[in-house]
Amino acid sequence: MPTSAEPAALRVDADRLIGRLRELGQVGAIDGGGCARLALTDADREGRDLVTMWMRDAGLEVAVDAIGNVVATRPGREPGPPVMCGSHVDTVATGGIYDGNLGVLAGLEVLETLNDGDIVTRRPVAVAFFTDEEGARFAPDMLGSLVYAGGLGVEEAHDIVSIDGARLGDELERIGYLGPTPCPGLVPHAYVELHIEQGPVLDRAGEVVGAVTGIQGISWQELVITGQANHAGTTPMEYRHDAGYAAAGVATFVRRMVGEMDGRQVGTVGRLRLHPDLVNVVAARAVLTVDLRNTDEALLQEAERRLEVYLAELAAAEGVKIDRRPLARFEPVDFDPRIISLVEATAGSLGYSARRLPAGAGHDAQMLARLCPAGMIFVPSVNGVSHNPAEFTEPEHLVAGANILLQMLVRLAEEDDIPGTAPGTGVGEGAP
Amino acid sequence: MPTSAEPAALRVDADRLIGRLRELGQVGAIDGGGCARLALTDADREGRDLVTMWMRDAGLEVAVDAIGNVVATRPGREPGPPVMCGSHVDTVATGGIYDGNLGVLAGLEVLETLNDGDIVTRRPVAVAFFTDEEGARFAPDMLGSLVYAGGLGVEEAHDIVSIDGARLGDELERIGYLGPTPCPGLVPHAYVELHIEQGPVLDRAGEVVGAVTGIQGISWQELVITGQANHAGTTPMEYRHDAGYAAAGVATFVRRMVGEMDGRQVGTVGRLRLHPDLVNVVAARAVLTVDLRNTDEALLQEAERRLEVYLAELAAAEGVKIDRRPLARFEPVDFDPRIISLVEATAGSLGYSARRLPAGAGHDAQMLARLCPAGMIFVPSVNGVSHNPAEFTEPEHLVAGANILLQMLVRLAEEDDIPGTAPGTGVGEGAP
Repeated sequence: MPTSAEPAALRVDADRLIGRLRELGQVGAIDGGGCARLALTDADREGRDLVTMWMRDAGLEVAVDAIGNVVATRPGREPGPPVMCGSHVDTVATGGIYDGNLGVLAGLEVLETLNDGDIVTRRPVAVAFFTDEEGARFAPDMLGSLVYAGGLGVEEAHDIVSIDGARLGDELERIGYLGPTPCPGLVPHAYVELHIEQGPVLDRAGEVVGAVTGIQGISWQELVITGQANHAGTTPMEYRHDAGYAAAGVATFVRRMVGEMDGRQVGTVGRLRLHPDLVNVVAARAVLTVDLRNTDEALLQEAERRLEVYLAELAAAEGVKIDRRPLARFEPVDFDPRIISLVEATAGSLGYSARRLPAGAGHDAQMLARLCPAGMIFVPSVNGVSHNPAEFTEPEHLVAGANILLQMLVRLAEEDDIPGTAPGTGVGEGAP
Repeated sequence: MPTSAEPAALRVDADRLIGRLRELGQVGAIDGGGCARLALTDADREGRDLVTMWMRDAGLEVAVDAIGNVVATRPGREPGPPVMCGSHVDTVATGGIYDGNLGVLAGLEVLETLNDGDIVTRRPVAVAFFTDEEGARFAPDMLGSLVYAGGLGVEEAHDIVSIDGARLGDELERIGYLGPTPCPGLVPHAYVELHIEQGPVLDRAGEVVGAVTGIQGISWQELVITGQANHAGTTPMEYRHDAGYAAAGVATFVRRMVGEMDGRQVGTVGRLRLHPDLVNVVAARAVLTVDLRNTDEALLQEAERRLEVYLAELAAAEGVKIDRRPLARFEPVDFDPRIISLVEATAGSLGYSARRLPAGAGHDAQMLARLCPAGMIFVPSVNGVSHNPAEFTEPEHLVAGANILLQMLVRLAEEDDIPGTAPGTGVGEGAP
């Protein structure tokens, strides 16, 4: 038996962590160094089996729940809710090897490091991977953590049909991950997720650690603009009802509005199609999407209102009809201030400065935030590239993130019970 | 033998004209009341055969040239160049029954009316239909009249390959319209083309006759904008190189610029495609077209220059690359001032006011204008609809146009030889 180490001196095994990231990345490997493990496919099963095998080999208690979430727990000195970390092992069709996988394998590495150091924590420590985070095969995304948190019923979730026509419940059973543990799941003491940023902020700023303040709220709308097809040569400008011009007006308005709001507001027209889409025909119809995001719900609503006012003015001015259809709407999620501060403090104790930033994309942590104090650690994505085989994070940054996760989980596992989640009431103000 | 009538009292046979428009419209008929007779197809042959039969039945001399243009001539008292009218009988795939056909069948009707009135004109009078005006099967459009006017060699034209892979010369021979008459063709004394407007100006103004001043110059460009694909949630606005936003900027700039120029300038972005065209991805690439038209070449060049300056500023501001490729460029054509005035005067003598306006689309008359004094008469298109089975012109307007054509051709056939084409030198200042 090894001698029990001082927890603050513990460090993860970098080679083991990176070796496992690469080994898991070989499952469903695609050209260019990425992988494709759409949720509940054979490739996903193979990835799950590999990670679950590593969990069992580490002596952890592995539980599979009714939506296929897998939670591996290392017992503590006392019973009660575990301190949990985790993420997901499914990927998009052109995924990289870090997105999701890092949070799961770093969590496993934390538990193995505790094993190696012969540490017994006060509370149990657990690492989870949640089903179908990407939503690339079954909508909505973050489905497993949503069901874990009680936001969607198991039966309803089982009846969701994939883009390839398969029923989710049947696919869970087929790949052997329809487990007996009930949902909603156990409420953790706290939840921390390590993830690559998937954006350029840390990489451009030359910083290693992001203390994630929350998840942006998302407003997706589809606009269908109906004008009138006309000859581009014979129709004077004043007689036109140009759906293409109106669509372009929306895209330039969104950019202008975002510039007038504070830096937290982003806006994108990423999809835009014209009909009949001919060089010499004024467009009769345009279909476009508007993606608005903000960390502040009131500001996000303001952006939606300003767009609505503009659309009414535009429709009247150009003599077109504009129909709006919501595609998605999620309110922003604020992470627990104690956890945010703990990310900063822990990073600092390990010699890293940390930058506070919101997450621009959705993560399982936002579902767990419904249940318990939750937060996230970001490490840089080189050039902000993600959902792409070229996704890359420097090995030393992967290891830095894992060590911060390790120290945070130890701290959270040992801390006194917290009466509330108000800021500054306990952990995170001083270094551990 | 009928008694010779006073030419100014002659009127066309409305029922015969409209009956023939409808009968020709049955050839290649499509749903919705239109027709599809793409150039040199079996349907085009059938339409040509029908019109040529009517020409021969009217006792006209029918000549087919080396590019398939058909000219039917009624002799005059004197030899020498004919006064010519005409248009085309090919259509687009979703064509109406008036576009082109009106000018040909009204011209035939004029010649038959001269027959019926037992009129012998001083000069010969001819009606022509030109091959492939629409350019819908063989590019460029106005191909037959271009070859007639000497702007393209016969052999080169014969080697043009259609969108369906057929060689133009082979198709001419196959349908029996590879004729012996050489190209370039005989230089007429003058050329007048009756055509539907294909735009909304006359219909909206409640006017029956357009005295066409010329053909707009056309500048078509394709722009390829290369930006960078990025996540719409995780990428701050200041790090974006958004090809979709840049494309929208071009479309709104074109509208703004056209508004700042005089009313003769029109501009259209009718085609616009984004890649990858996803709601949550900043577009990496946009492909769009810009269609600029003006009756004034200097102003058209000014519009092109202003667009070029804007594109350079936009590329620098957004950090995108913008590649430009010309798709088409034609200088404006000014019709002969004498012919324009003669349209107005003749319309007036028949009780119609005439409005001067440019043609927004190309017509065979612009090719004939290279050879002789040329001009056009427009009659209204209801709602400006054309290249559409719903294309419609009121029967009384069709007949009005044909009667103006009749009187103009008689006047031009009788007039003294004109030493030049300067304005106000002869015909058109007074009523006939």
